Amino acid sequence: MIVVMNHGAKQEEIQRVIDRLTGAGFQIHLSEGVERTIIGAIGDKTRLSQLALEAMPGVDKLVPILQQFKLAGREFKEQGTVVKVGNISIGGEQLHVMAGPCAVESRGQLLEVAHEVKEAGATLLRGGAFKPRTSPYAFQGLEEEGLKILAEAREQTGLPIVTEVVDPRTVELVANYTDILQIGARNMQNFFLLKEVAKADKPVLLKRGPSATIEEWLMAAEYIMAGGNYNVILCERGIRTYETYTRNTLDLNAVPAVKNLSHLPVIVDPSHGTGKWKLVAPMARAAIAAGADGLMVEVHCSPAEAMSDGPQSLTPENFRVLMQEIRQIAPVMGRKLG
Amino acid sequence: MIVVMNHGAKQEEIQRVIDRLTGAGFQIHLSEGVERTIIGAIGDKTRLSQLALEAMPGVDKLVPILQQFKLAGREFKEQGTVVKVGNISIGGEQLHVMAGPCAVESRGQLLEVAHEVKEAGATLLRGGAFKPRTSPYAFQGLEEEGLKILAEAREQTGLPIVTEVVDPRTVELVANYTDILQIGARNMQNFFLLKEVAKADKPVLLKRGPSATIEEWLMAAEYIMAGGNYNVILCERGIRTYETYTRNTLDLNAVPAVKNLSHLPVIVDPSHGTGKWKLVAPMARAAIAAGADGLMVEVHCSPAEAMSDGPQSLTPENFRVLMQEIRQIAPVMGRKLG
Amino acid sequence: MIVVMNHGAKQEEIQRVIDRLTGAGFQIHLSEGVERTIIGAIGDKTRLSQLALEAMPGVDKLVPILQQFKLAGREFKEQGTVVKVGNISIGGEQLHVMAGPCAVESRGQLLEVAHEVKEAGATLLRGGAFKPRTSPYAFQGLEEEGLKILAEAREQTGLPIVTEVVDPRTVELVANYTDILQIGARNMQNFFLLKEVAKADKPVLLKRGPSATIEEWLMAAEYIMAGGNYNVILCERGIRTYETYTRNTLDLNAVPAVKNLSHLPVIVDPSHGTGKWKLVAPMARAAIAAGADGLMVEVHCSPAEAMSDGPQSLTPENFRVLMQEIRQIAPVMGRKLG
Amino acid sequence: MIVVMNHGAKQEEIQRVIDRLTGAGFQIHLSEGVERTIIGAIGDKTRLSQLALEAMPGVDKLVPILQQFKLAGREFKEQGTVVKVGNISIGGEQLHVMAGPCAVESRGQLLEVAHEVKEAGATLLRGGAFKPRTSPYAFQGLEEEGLKILAEAREQTGLPIVTEVVDPRTVELVANYTDILQIGARNMQNFFLLKEVAKADKPVLLKRGPSATIEEWLMAAEYIMAGGNYNVILCERGIRTYETYTRNTLDLNAVPAVKNLSHLPVIVDPSHGTGKWKLVAPMARAAIAAGADGLMVEVHCSPAEAMSDGPQSLTPENFRVLMQEIRQIAPVMGRKLG
Repeated sequence: MIVVMNHGAKQEEIQRVIDRLTGAGFQIHLSEGVERTIIGAIGDKTRLSQLALEAMPGVDKLVPILQQFKLAGREFKEQGTVVKVGNISIGGEQLHVMAGPCAVESRGQLLEVAHEVKEAGATLLRGGAFKPRTSPYAFQGLEEEGLKILAEAREQTGLPIVTEVVDPRTVELVANYTDILQIGARNMQNFFLLKEVAKADKPVLLKRGPSATIEEWLMAAEYIMAGGNYNVILCERGIRTYETYTRNTLDLNAVPAVKNLSHLPVIVDPSHGTGKWKLVAPMARAAIAAGADGLMVEVHCSPAEAMSDGPQSLTPENFRVLMQEIRQIAPVMGRKLG
Repeated sequence: MIVVMNHGAKQEEIQRVIDRLTGAGFQIHLSEGVERTIIGAIGDKTRLSQLALEAMPGVDKLVPILQQFKLAGREFKEQGTVVKVGNISIGGEQLHVMAGPCAVESRGQLLEVAHEVKEAGATLLRGGAFKPRTSPYAFQGLEEEGLKILAEAREQTGLPIVTEVVDPRTVELVANYTDILQIGARNMQNFFLLKEVAKADKPVLLKRGPSATIEEWLMAAEYIMAGGNYNVILCERGIRTYETYTRNTLDLNAVPAVKNLSHLPVIVDPSHGTGKWKLVAPMARAAIAAGADGLMVEVHCSPAEAMSDGPQSLTPENFRVLMQEIRQIAPVMGRKLG
Repeated sequence: MIVVMNHGAKQEEIQRVIDRLTGAGFQIHLSEGVERTIIGAIGDKTRLSQLALEAMPGVDKLVPILQQFKLAGREFKEQGTVVKVGNISIGGEQLHVMAGPCAVESRGQLLEVAHEVKEAGATLLRGGAFKPRTSPYAFQGLEEEGLKILAEAREQTGLPIVTEVVDPRTVELVANYTDILQIGARNMQNFFLLKEVAKADKPVLLKRGPSATIEEWLMAAEYIMAGGNYNVILCERGIRTYETYTRNTLDLNAVPAVKNLSHLPVIVDPSHGTGKWKLVAPMARAAIAAGADGLMVEVHCSPAEAMSDGPQSLTPENFRVLMQEIRQIAPVMGRKLG
Repeated sequence: MIVVMNHGAKQEEIQRVIDRLTGAGFQIHLSEGVERTIIGAIGDKTRLSQLALEAMPGVDKLVPILQQFKLAGREFKEQGTVVKVGNISIGGEQLHVMAGPCAVESRGQLLEVAHEVKEAGATLLRGGAFKPRTSPYAFQGLEEEGLKILAEAREQTGLPIVTEVVDPRTVELVANYTDILQIGARNMQNFFLLKEVAKADKPVLLKRGPSATIEEWLMAAEYIMAGGNYNVILCERGIRTYETYTRNTLDLNAVPAVKNLSHLPVIVDPSHGTGKWKLVAPMARAAIAAGADGLMVEVHCSPAEAMSDGPQSLTPENFRVLMQEIRQIAPVMGRKLG
């Protein structure tokens, strides 16, 4: 951390900053320039947020030098993390595709699509039972009934399931059914929910918030890890920009960026990321070529009847074509698709 | 709602869209142009999200004509809503300033600042007991202990209190102490928390999410109102943009925009909105000149010792100067500051 | 400037960075931490961009400590700059309002509105003769004919004029007619145009680019100043964000921010900034309350007939009401409106 | 175009809108709903911007139904455009990679890198002779001297060249040397420059502006096409978002989006798009997988000595590896790399 003092900061103001830093165990390097005095502080970065240096008299600004996360960082753990879900390993040589409908709508709908995606090569089944919706008048999900249907689909197909948890009060309930607990984009900084999934004995799929920086996303992972659960899978799903043609701007730059900064596996959701089914396959291919460890894709047997997010869902047929393309790109990346 | 069909959509595709709309009770207006066919649909807008039209074959896109909110809209209620908090009326002629520290840190700290802000003219006391923090290693708040201190400050000063609620499980607890339940920016789309405060018998201060459009913000208000609680106060607190000089970009345009679209009162938080105390007073004055019904301002007796957000806190002295300026601008707006 | 080396950077890589910096006349402060080595460099900041340090082996990133502008900075000149235009002083005690139509459409249209805005208290006349339009099929301006009409309006009303220059080849032509050369938002980083107006003997009104940071805006001012023209007036006119309700997001935070960073006067254009005439008056009042030195406002005698930007133009009547309100807010700011 | 009238618009206001539309040759469809009246207008969309409907009394807003571009649109020309540059075809089966340094720095530097990139498989040579730089103190390019060096490199290697034109006064000069005229991102809406390159007898590479929507980008292409030059190649190079880890956010979604909307070829520049050389190869691979017709990549023999944009330049060795990867992904896309 660098503390930049104001042009004309007084000697005593500089001293007071130094005292507070050394008092908190930081090692100090002082640079007195013509225009400004600059104080470098080296020590436990996790303590800096408690020092309130930015409000001290004479301080112009703080300049962070290192990322604030620790457990989630590549410097903490050189080797990429592999998250085990049953006999599946996410983050290893094998790519994994989680496919299924946005929402579980009925037993028939889910079972049909579950078999379809399995046949096409998906290795996990996705589907929402609790749906956070922008409008209070929209379909809100089948809740526990949906979880039961997901569990039945797993039994029939053998595919582990991933479903969203939206409320700290239902983490335990959802964890009883699902194989991976999904934190949705809007809940990425719902810290009280993060603390709850940190206690659960299930891997967590953490979607990037729609306006979260890569660093904030990794800090959210840090919450879960600091709470004791190291099995975090990151999922890029698009950020909010000024562009309106796409629902979100799927930020594939985040894939190699996360690979540089963190050891956690990262997958990509091109369905929410673009909001248009025609863009899903190109961006899914691109995600794999950028180095993602897998995909999360919405598939619906009749998108035009879907109760949520139909416009971004692939038909089983389109999904099969996409899987075929991924299978060809995988080896270029030194990966394979089962 | 307008449904724009693809260039070259088939007659049967057009008919299927019309059938689905009329089946849902919509009245249809068909425009067959040279390049495109356009279907206008008039009816209950709250049902549209369930029709999944965008995924139907031949559909290019949906163009919403009316805002999706209803209860929160100016067309639903012409007259501005006045929210009563004890003997205070927010949204009336009187402007209200909610002041206090970002976080309750100790009994001494809060009581001191409470008396200071009251003397300067604040009519409500703010202070966080539960703090959602980006870093798991940062101070997380005094929790119930903090609520008790807030209640004591209210007793001593007579100022009603406003404090944040962050978890559906603690809504009841917080409601037992506070006069206004605050929904923080990061929780604006925590729909399960919104549903919980909708059931509480306390007014809700709803902060705008850091990447929420004005329409999404009003949809979040709609959640609370649809759940039975009509006492919603909106609070603009800055949005995320590419600009990095300010912590957020305080969007004062939202003040007259909300006044046009909605009947709900709107206040402004220039402390979080700018993140720099030097910008707080100019933007607070500007907020009032733009037509805001009040302000939420962070005040701390020694910002440099604050456990959170010191850099954006005013000293009591700076706060008094600001209140003096507001007092002079208020009459230009046909308002007054008590 | 701080150079942060990679975790594990080699001693020779560190030495090579130090050598390049000292070779360029920089003074060095070295901090060797456990995790990272950090090199502080103090010297002529304008030379840093030529050193390409960021690409040197072992370098993680550069962290700028000081703003890159110099002539435009408050540290270069403590006192606020006052720009003289005829017998008008922009940046002094007096607030100035530049009003008129978006585009000069005809002699009759301009003369009528010129007299109207003068009567209401405007002290400068605005109007576009060269119009940069998003569509090649839209009205592109009257060009020199428009300049002649502006000059005639000045003769009749005594109001100095401000009009946009869009092409390096016509700077001289426009300068022959206008009192202030306006650089439009889309041209803020048209550096070859900036260099040309730097040579002109007329003050320059520099609009902020739609996606320019405050620092980039001041760097554009630096171009003009480095070219020899110190009479630069900054104009905030809205930035591009994800919000779609307003045409742009007028960023009033930029007003106090610029006042902190720079000595140049700053005015605000709420017409382009919001794109909706109903929001113009509230945001104009707010701009003055935030500390702006003046306004630029679109006024059109019949907005519904305007050939460009009608929806954001005030009628003369609405403009008079606004001027009345500004007249009342000005004294709170220690300013006056003539 | 849909005109949405205000709740409570008067019959005569509605009639006046209809009259103006029919007077301009539009065909009208009227929908009188309970809440609002909606007027659909079908006709020559290029004339709408001249009608100023949005400012007419009683009008709430205009809702565009069709994109505003015409010549650039897929509806105007079904088949993808192939741009010929010498014996090279951009937009055909063959992928093309334009490689070279950000700026031409010296004869030796350029010739060396030109041979390197040719050998690795690049089919065009890039290099800037006129450099638009944010700081007036940064290296501004070798100007005509740089153009001569580029021409010499072409002679030696046979690679056609692409270089940026920044000023309407030098379009002819640059066109005398280059094979493709490049419009840089900051000049995408420099309409007077666009009109000038429209007259040139050379293909134009049009970079997307840093805050341009896809529609605005295609409107800029429309300017060039409306001016008579149909040989436009689009180039995605990153947009400005709130994310700061990358210099820009390379928006690969734009690749399939442009392919849907337009018939023009589109290439991707991952060097400017990310600003970090480590991200260049992953994003270059991803661009091809998303369906791009080619790449523009910065290569420098010693990035650490580069006079501009070193941190985002590949070494010849890294470039060779990348080309090898692209060669493997191309066939999956039904493309090949020469």
